[in-house]
Amino acid sequence: MSVYTPVSEAQLSAWLGNYSVGALVSCEPIKAGIENTNYFVTTAQGRFVLTLFERLPAEELPFYINLMAHLARHGIPCPAPIADLSDRYLQHLNGKPAALVTRLPGKSVERPTEAQCAELGALLGRMHLAARSYAGYLENPRGPRWWRFAAREVAGFLHAPQKVLLESEMAFQAGHRFPDLPRGPVHADLFRDNALFEGPRISGVVDFYFAGVDCLLYDVAVCVNDWCLVDPASDRRLDAARTRALLAACHAVRPFSPLEREAWPAMLRAAALRFWLSRLYDFHLPRSGMMVHAHDPEHFREILELRGRAAAPWMD
Amino acid sequence: MSVYTPVSEAQLSAWLGNYSVGALVSCEPIKAGIENTNYFVTTAQGRFVLTLFERLPAEELPFYINLMAHLARHGIPCPAPIADLSDRYLQHLNGKPAALVTRLPGKSVERPTEAQCAELGALLGRMHLAARSYAGYLENPRGPRWWRFAAREVAGFLHAPQKVLLESEMAFQAGHRFPDLPRGPVHADLFRDNALFEGPRISGVVDFYFAGVDCLLYDVAVCVNDWCLVDPASDRRLDAARTRALLAACHAVRPFSPLEREAWPAMLRAAALRFWLSRLYDFHLPRSGMMVHAHDPEHFREILELRGRAAAPWMD
Repeated sequence: MSVYTPVSEAQLSAWLGNYSVGALVSCEPIKAGIENTNYFVTTAQGRFVLTLFERLPAEELPFYINLMAHLARHGIPCPAPIADLSDRYLQHLNGKPAALVTRLPGKSVERPTEAQCAELGALLGRMHLAARSYAGYLENPRGPRWWRFAAREVAGFLHAPQKVLLESEMAFQAGHRFPDLPRGPVHADLFRDNALFEGPRISGVVDFYFAGVDCLLYDVAVCVNDWCLVDPASDRRLDAARTRALLAACHAVRPFSPLEREAWPAMLRAAALRFWLSRLYDFHLPRSGMMVHAHDPEHFREILELRGRAAAPWMD
Repeated sequence: MSVYTPVSEAQLSAWLGNYSVGALVSCEPIKAGIENTNYFVTTAQGRFVLTLFERLPAEELPFYINLMAHLARHGIPCPAPIADLSDRYLQHLNGKPAALVTRLPGKSVERPTEAQCAELGALLGRMHLAARSYAGYLENPRGPRWWRFAAREVAGFLHAPQKVLLESEMAFQAGHRFPDLPRGPVHADLFRDNALFEGPRISGVVDFYFAGVDCLLYDVAVCVNDWCLVDPASDRRLDAARTRALLAACHAVRPFSPLEREAWPAMLRAAALRFWLSRLYDFHLPRSGMMVHAHDPEHFREILELRGRAAAPWMD
């Protein structure tokens, strides 16, 4: 459970006096999530999520919060930050930067269908189009610069074959930069547990705290590497039908350019490398006080190896 | 039915390409409302209302639209305008200014209970607090200046006793200006049909196209004159329990000042006068092409007479 900063009902009630959402009805800690402290908050007016930011640099918070506000007012079903009576999205609570955002309905799916992958692909396209007019700028904090840092940090913990794979993938990516691909704000962490469905429709996209400006195609690759596996637990190859469904629906909203098609196989490897590195890092260099067991890095090592081996993965 | 400007599915589909709300699923004209053309619009992403502005001055539209956006991001359940891909709330469609806003769930109630009146009172308080930080300014377009205009226009149509009442109420109000009451953006037309309930909770406040800056207490008076009648069809006196419930809930969120308590009886008469005048005006001077029968002005004449006669109506 990841409640690093407890908040009492009395504290929360008083704090909500800064907002026009009505009196506190109930409050419940959220166990998922490892970066921030989160509570479900119900008031006389509605359902919200309270986030206390534990580790994110204070100067980056406006990028995330304003991006959510921007997307929400374009009709993207993401958490909408609630402004306080002084018209600010960011407040403080118990010494931490804090924000109140709308709570979205729906549930995440563990085994997405072809139709759900298509829904996600269309949503990605719409989100990327809507984000284009966003004025904020933050370089993807888990981009190539961070890969090099993480690769150095974890190098001493790796077995020989892992080391070989890491070095060869780092070298491969260094030879595959894509400065001419369409860029913009991307979610960059839109795994299955960050999307909520209500029936066939995506009712929510949550957790924008890894967002940054990067190639739009990178966002697509992160999703495909999580949503379109034949079996996430046992067979990390891409399922052809679901991969095609996601890509076709995304393409129908924002057509992929020829350069993006060319870059696609390398982008799948970049997205796998990023998560292999962060999982290696969290596994070998756990933060003190971290309350959640690190994910097994092997999952993404296998994905990375498979993507390097496979032929053109269905962007046609 | 009030669809002054027809919109075909093909036109709407093309127009929605300016937004990131997904493809058109269905579209249905809304029959209620007399000022604008409205459609329910369902897209791949969600449910929206499309409004084509038929009569409102173009220079006033940003005040209304930005006020809704401001309130929505403060957690007030009002229609949230959707920004297009160029980040604008106002577009054009078939030669008319047009906006797409979120469609809120819930249904209006014809006979509100005491608890529902309290819900409305609390929402009014929250809305007034949230609106305080709104930077836009538009004097209430149906304020005293407009009363004088309308009174001149309808004078020739009135019977002697109506004339006496109108003249005496205009004189009474001229002697009761309240420059020191708390002011801010108010809805100014929050009748029962402009509030939506989902169970016990207000899920939506709609139709902000009579909003303007005025005394906050005026908004409360408009509501009480519609929500708290003993029987809207046959007994226009105020029901004590519902009136007290609405006022107490509003007061709990934004306490009434001593000056507001003093002004309350005159404010109820001001709110009744405004709607008597507009109904007289629409009845005797109907606009050409107006597709809805004017409301009977007698309803508000009776309310106005009763408010002038009653003792202090329960602000205690």
